[in-house]
Amino acid sequence: TIVDRVKAALYPKDLSGKKIMVSAGPTREAIDPVRYISNRSSGKMGYEIARAAEYRGAEVTLVSGPVSLASPLGVDRLSVTSVGEMAETIFSRLDDVDAVIKVAAVADYRPRTRAEHKIKKKSDDMTLELDKNIDILKELGKRKTRQVLVGFAAETQSLAENARKKIEAKNLDMIVGNLVGDPASGFGTDTNIVTFFHPDGRKEPFESMGKDVVAHELLNRVSGLLKERL
Amino acid sequence: TIVDRVKAALYPKDLSGKKIMVSAGPTREAIDPVRYISNRSSGKMGYEIARAAEYRGAEVTLVSGPVSLASPLGVDRLSVTSVGEMAETIFSRLDDVDAVIKVAAVADYRPRTRAEHKIKKKSDDMTLELDKNIDILKELGKRKTRQVLVGFAAETQSLAENARKKIEAKNLDMIVGNLVGDPASGFGTDTNIVTFFHPDGRKEPFESMGKDVVAHELLNRVSGLLKERL
Repeated sequence: TIVDRVKAALYPKDLSGKKIMVSAGPTREAIDPVRYISNRSSGKMGYEIARAAEYRGAEVTLVSGPVSLASPLGVDRLSVTSVGEMAETIFSRLDDVDAVIKVAAVADYRPRTRAEHKIKKKSDDMTLELDKNIDILKELGKRKTRQVLVGFAAETQSLAENARKKIEAKNLDMIVGNLVGDPASGFGTDTNIVTFFHPDGRKEPFESMGKDVVAHELLNRVSGLLKERL
Repeated sequence: TIVDRVKAALYPKDLSGKKIMVSAGPTREAIDPVRYISNRSSGKMGYEIARAAEYRGAEVTLVSGPVSLASPLGVDRLSVTSVGEMAETIFSRLDDVDAVIKVAAVADYRPRTRAEHKIKKKSDDMTLELDKNIDILKELGKRKTRQVLVGFAAETQSLAENARKKIEAKNLDMIVGNLVGDPASGFGTDTNIVTFFHPDGRKEPFESMGKDVVAHELLNRVSGLLKERL
């Protein structure tokens, strides 16, 4: 849209020449051809980051789980469903990018077997056996070379503790923590209450902000980290 | 919209004075505050029926699971998430309506317990214990008095057999069967390939049709059944 291009023109092109991959949305792990396990991620936060990075001149790849959002203009969107597909798509493009911002809410477990046909309800109870999925972010932390790697941690409790654990265990350059459950923060909302955690122990807590504002604050940090690596 | 009202004006008001309740979309059964079990229903078929019934003069209540569709104009939409909520909403309004068209794809099972906090991934596997949900359609079949009751059966195999079983076991006045899996039929598409099954053994198979056309064919039958009961 014209509005979109006018807005884009207002931003400094500090990410010009940079390739940024953003993952967004939920994943779906099939139980049978009809049913699946998913989560409440709307994809809004990741889409705002992809949009903001494009405004600022980056070449953006958006690896997206199933969401009901329009693709941001000028962004290369790759649609995936399961964690397996998302992992494959991300790893195949890793060598080509300068930063990976992993916003997608990835399923930790998947059903052990996917029934070929719709499971008929019979017994009064049922047991679903789940296997652990690959931890995409942790794997990226092992494989990264020059890339800046940013993760997200949506927690319902012990945010700082969980965020600190993840930043070290997954070899991240930054993690964005947000406590979900607050109406102004998290799933499906247009605002978010986040804290940026850095590997050196610094943390930057923010008040409730629009997800577009969070996106630009985040990209300010990514832009700085990319400059340090030149 | 104006287009919508012009279209509405083209239809005979054969459902004028009738109250019709339509259920649509998937349900979500929470595993924890973030994760849930759901299914691939987009809600499109149910929304088209609600819209078509309103065009034809009915007073329409649409009980809808989480979907990304706009409410049809003039339709009273009630949003629900879980099967429990959907059941409560439908049963509380049953006495007031002349027909119930149950299009929603309702979860047959729900997690036995809903974790208060996000479950952390630890072990390599996990077992999810599920309990059977109430069968809303079957319960409606028991409770109905004057109401016309129509169900849907989305199957991946043995469509006729499963549809016939359901029509009897659930005391339905008609069931709409569709074989999901075909690209032109079922989840998320704008077309559907359906067969109407009647309690007297008649069946009416259709070619691929727009979901709006399916909606009007279905309402023709419902309108006829309502007239017989006067």
